[in-house]
Amino acid sequence: MAPVIKLNSGYDMPQVGFGLWKVDNAVASDVVYNAIKAGYRLFDGACDYGNEVECGKGVARAIAEGIVKREDLFIVSKLWNTFHDGERVQPIVKKQLADWGVDYFDLYLIHFPVALEYVDPSVRYPPGWHYEGDEIRPSKATIQETWTAMESLVEAGLARSIGISNFQSQLIYDLLRYAKIRPATLQIEHHPYLTQEELLKLAKREGIAVTAYSSFGPASFLEFNMQHAVKLQPLMEDETIKSIAAKYNRPASEVLLRWATQRGLAVIPKTTRQEVMLSNLQNTEFDLSEEDIATISGFNRGIRFNQPSNYFPTELLWIFG
Amino acid sequence: MAPVIKLNSGYDMPQVGFGLWKVDNAVASDVVYNAIKAGYRLFDGACDYGNEVECGKGVARAIAEGIVKREDLFIVSKLWNTFHDGERVQPIVKKQLADWGVDYFDLYLIHFPVALEYVDPSVRYPPGWHYEGDEIRPSKATIQETWTAMESLVEAGLARSIGISNFQSQLIYDLLRYAKIRPATLQIEHHPYLTQEELLKLAKREGIAVTAYSSFGPASFLEFNMQHAVKLQPLMEDETIKSIAAKYNRPASEVLLRWATQRGLAVIPKTTRQEVMLSNLQNTEFDLSEEDIATISGFNRGIRFNQPSNYFPTELLWIFG
Repeated sequence: MAPVIKLNSGYDMPQVGFGLWKVDNAVASDVVYNAIKAGYRLFDGACDYGNEVECGKGVARAIAEGIVKREDLFIVSKLWNTFHDGERVQPIVKKQLADWGVDYFDLYLIHFPVALEYVDPSVRYPPGWHYEGDEIRPSKATIQETWTAMESLVEAGLARSIGISNFQSQLIYDLLRYAKIRPATLQIEHHPYLTQEELLKLAKREGIAVTAYSSFGPASFLEFNMQHAVKLQPLMEDETIKSIAAKYNRPASEVLLRWATQRGLAVIPKTTRQEVMLSNLQNTEFDLSEEDIATISGFNRGIRFNQPSNYFPTELLWIFG
Repeated sequence: MAPVIKLNSGYDMPQVGFGLWKVDNAVASDVVYNAIKAGYRLFDGACDYGNEVECGKGVARAIAEGIVKREDLFIVSKLWNTFHDGERVQPIVKKQLADWGVDYFDLYLIHFPVALEYVDPSVRYPPGWHYEGDEIRPSKATIQETWTAMESLVEAGLARSIGISNFQSQLIYDLLRYAKIRPATLQIEHHPYLTQEELLKLAKREGIAVTAYSSFGPASFLEFNMQHAVKLQPLMEDETIKSIAAKYNRPASEVLLRWATQRGLAVIPKTTRQEVMLSNLQNTEFDLSEEDIATISGFNRGIRFNQPSNYFPTELLWIFG
């Protein structure tokens, strides 16, 4: 079993989990079921991934077959931008719980700090970033309003821990002024090309656990034909990474994950290949030297791939500015 | 006279002003007086610069001699971090107005979005970033609380326009959810090494005027012995910048300012040399070609110099994360 991280909510979170972004609906149930069989206990989902019903079926099958109990699992989901208005939060969480077929989330995150106008789930679900042309439509909800509603999820037993994702440091500092329940985790893009020293510093100071997404860097983004992802050396094919991997007799993917977990972060890699699933899960079973960690951290170029403006250039350029 | 920018508050702001950061107290009164004589009308001050009394003396002398009237000037000041608690805002603004010897500010900005514990001005003024070792002491004030107090300045006639400085985009988006009076301006570090495309995009979309500080890049920071400022080519000595300057028969400093003003920004250069004062003020009297503007924008490397962690490494690394 992977090590756990003790959250400020008192719960333990597995340090290595399974990320559900871009897991096709057609295979999601089997992927989740197989990942549970492989030993995964944390699943990182979201409304926006559009596959929560299917992922829930994989969980149900594993529970029905007695492989795990609900309490063995750590199920994560996320609040989409169009549900930031305070009164929208509990209803959508209840829908997402019903989709998963569970009655609480272990962790529920604000996906992006970008409040958008409400979209009725019966009209379009998941709602995505925009509608009617390229224009995004802001809602009036402040992050404080949304966070207060997130806190009510804990009181209502719908989420055991709550957290944030894709937040910049200044907004986190501001949230900490008014939070009655502090964020248990911060989920951010993090890989050797984007080492996020500033956010890690703030999270450590404030006792917030950090989960890294896109641990393999550009690899997750090649399918979008992003110019800077295509041009950059894939980390797993980089000679330096490969030579470190050879030294430890581990695949490059495990080295990239171990670099993150030795920095104290949780990771949520995704794969549909059973042997890679196992390998990823085992990344904490060896240790990189301090020197190798520093070498990998030296790749930092401040390059972000999961920038919404890469999908919708005109309207969303500002999000990480 | 420099062109003006129409603010969303209805007031006109001179596009070229004079920045008062690092103007020594011993010369500040003369510098301001001379700058007024040279034609400057906007002065960009702050509690933190520690020279508001002296700057006010320069203003008083120019008014006494009939060179300008108060209403010809556009005086900017800023709220320091230790005065973010709602009830502290009006009292400190009144003190700052008394220091300047005027009864309203044309523009008053939140200097940094970092609420720190109150420091009584009779104990230490300006209070600076930290006290008692390296530890900063947060206050409980949210940005919404501080902004509400800023709005009360307009209602009380203490500030005609209000704005923000050093804010990241997500915090601006959040502020716009609750602002009754929208920020008139955003003041940010901006130079060819840090072109701030994301923030400019958001500001344009939201009708917020942008003021660039540190227009000459590393030049302003050499005195702090910052490693990355010392290592980088000074922009005014860069061959590309120099050759563009030669083409227009203007000093490199004017080219750097004109690049910003043609992008629609206000600028606030500082100098104590009378001939440079005049030259800087004249930067809008010629136009760079679109091609030259693009060449200069191509210097962008995302390098920030005014990072508080450069002065206090351990505690403030996170501010722009």
